[in-house]
Amino acid sequence: MNKSPSSIFGIVQDDIDAVEKELYSVIQSPVDLVNDIGVHLIQAGGKRLRPALYLLCARGGNPSLSELLPMAVAIELIHMATLVHDDVIDSAATRRGRPTANSRWGNHSSVLTGDYLWAKAFSTIASSADKSMLKILTDVISSMCEGEIVQLREAFNPEQDEADYRQRVAQKTADFIAASCELGALSGGLDEADVVQAREYGFALGMAFQITDDILDITASAEQLGKPVGNDLRQGIVTLPTIYALKTSFHRDELRNIIEKQNMSDEDVRRGLEIVHETDAVEYSYQQVSRYLQHARNSLPLTFRAPVREALLAVADFVGLRKY
Amino acid sequence: MNKSPSSIFGIVQDDIDAVEKELYSVIQSPVDLVNDIGVHLIQAGGKRLRPALYLLCARGGNPSLSELLPMAVAIELIHMATLVHDDVIDSAATRRGRPTANSRWGNHSSVLTGDYLWAKAFSTIASSADKSMLKILTDVISSMCEGEIVQLREAFNPEQDEADYRQRVAQKTADFIAASCELGALSGGLDEADVVQAREYGFALGMAFQITDDILDITASAEQLGKPVGNDLRQGIVTLPTIYALKTSFHRDELRNIIEKQNMSDEDVRRGLEIVHETDAVEYSYQQVSRYLQHARNSLPLTFRAPVREALLAVADFVGLRKY
Repeated sequence: MNKSPSSIFGIVQDDIDAVEKELYSVIQSPVDLVNDIGVHLIQAGGKRLRPALYLLCARGGNPSLSELLPMAVAIELIHMATLVHDDVIDSAATRRGRPTANSRWGNHSSVLTGDYLWAKAFSTIASSADKSMLKILTDVISSMCEGEIVQLREAFNPEQDEADYRQRVAQKTADFIAASCELGALSGGLDEADVVQAREYGFALGMAFQITDDILDITASAEQLGKPVGNDLRQGIVTLPTIYALKTSFHRDELRNIIEKQNMSDEDVRRGLEIVHETDAVEYSYQQVSRYLQHARNSLPLTFRAPVREALLAVADFVGLRKY
Repeated sequence: MNKSPSSIFGIVQDDIDAVEKELYSVIQSPVDLVNDIGVHLIQAGGKRLRPALYLLCARGGNPSLSELLPMAVAIELIHMATLVHDDVIDSAATRRGRPTANSRWGNHSSVLTGDYLWAKAFSTIASSADKSMLKILTDVISSMCEGEIVQLREAFNPEQDEADYRQRVAQKTADFIAASCELGALSGGLDEADVVQAREYGFALGMAFQITDDILDITASAEQLGKPVGNDLRQGIVTLPTIYALKTSFHRDELRNIIEKQNMSDEDVRRGLEIVHETDAVEYSYQQVSRYLQHARNSLPLTFRAPVREALLAVADFVGLRKY
């Protein structure tokens, strides 16, 4: 059994419950269908990692929850918007073991609901957020979109190296988690050096988080993942373990041929995963995760109070240990 | 030949050119594909009606262009984002006679580029916009999404009356045009009564604009439209002329049956349009356009300077006369 993430957010667990409540209130719409999809997305939502990190880093200082709530909610709404659009893009049928919005309500409503969530996110912070914080948020969103577009463009292309991969993971995932921490530190009124450190912690954590995701996609069971195994490979998305195998496997030419197929059969995917598993790609990738997590831990601002530090260290441990 | 819209924006024509230039600069990305799609969308862009209305209403007062530019650009970026997502939703192959982004680069890149444009829109105004203006903008976007979702939900449903239609058109189109005028009047520092009037002008103009669009979809040639005729009917979107025909035509049961078909043949669409044309649905709909335009003209703030009033009246004339 995995340690429940709900127990690791420590001193901000109550705040997360408030975020949860506020999410339901913000997405309310006179249009039933919009409500239904919104509620589904909230319920399908995961750990609330990003708002939790935002709140924890803010608790490095002493702001009130009411000051923090809008940005925490906006961060989760933005994350939800990216997820619902990602699922449309990936034609995903399930996420975390539940049907995706697109599989239940169709791509069209899902695209529009994502847009609705963007608007609600900015609406939530319009009246409270500091201008420079708004800019941090919008810059990271455009960068996320760029990262996703690059991922699409580079799908089925085996000619990608680790640097390409890291750049993509930074844009897709780590920059947003870094921004969540940075925004938290700014909201907490921390000094500039601590803001930079909090951001660094978030960035390294985000890199570790996404690499773990990419490892689990080839090692976990479909049940654990709540979606099919080898999903990335099937979509031609070349992740760290695959890049490693493409460099080191005796069967690298075969793997390369599989990746270049736009319509992989189940057997292709199975064989591709087998080739990756024959190498020590998973071990190598976990080493990278550990390296990033160590960097995250070392980056934590020393001025953070003990319960904040403890929670942020627990989050780092959780990212390294999670099995789904 | 239609009067070119570029000549009707009068005193803000130079400002629109500045908006145009700024659009290219804002969408720039280190990712070539993002640039390519962005440039395509700007070039495929229409009349820049919304930023022009924003600028004109702002010119009711005396702000500088540099104060106005970010919001004008953001308004057009938001419009572009809705268009690119709409084209994905409608699976449209062409818009204004040019291939759509989705037909050229696929749905996935188009969804992401729309998201990129949302982010760029808010990024553009993050550092300058007044909080209440930001709120007006985000509220209108969520309302637009709701309107589009309702349209999807009510597709192929012939049980819609004029009130449903007006509500949908308000949310889909008129509210955003109203907000463009309202934001302009606010940026121009006009007094509250004039802000309300400017909004009213924009709302009525927007209603007239969308009803005209819906009429042209059944009266214009595919060449004029730059997209197939009867597109709305084929997608089950019930517009004012159709609602009128459903109420008055001798063949209303036949029309009802056609609308309920989820997969209309070309012959179904042709026959549906024929039934609508046999009634005076088009004449009736144009009467509604005229009524809204008259209301728009009457709503113009009296304090607006002569060249501003003239341009806003010319825009109303243009909306009433446009043939595509």
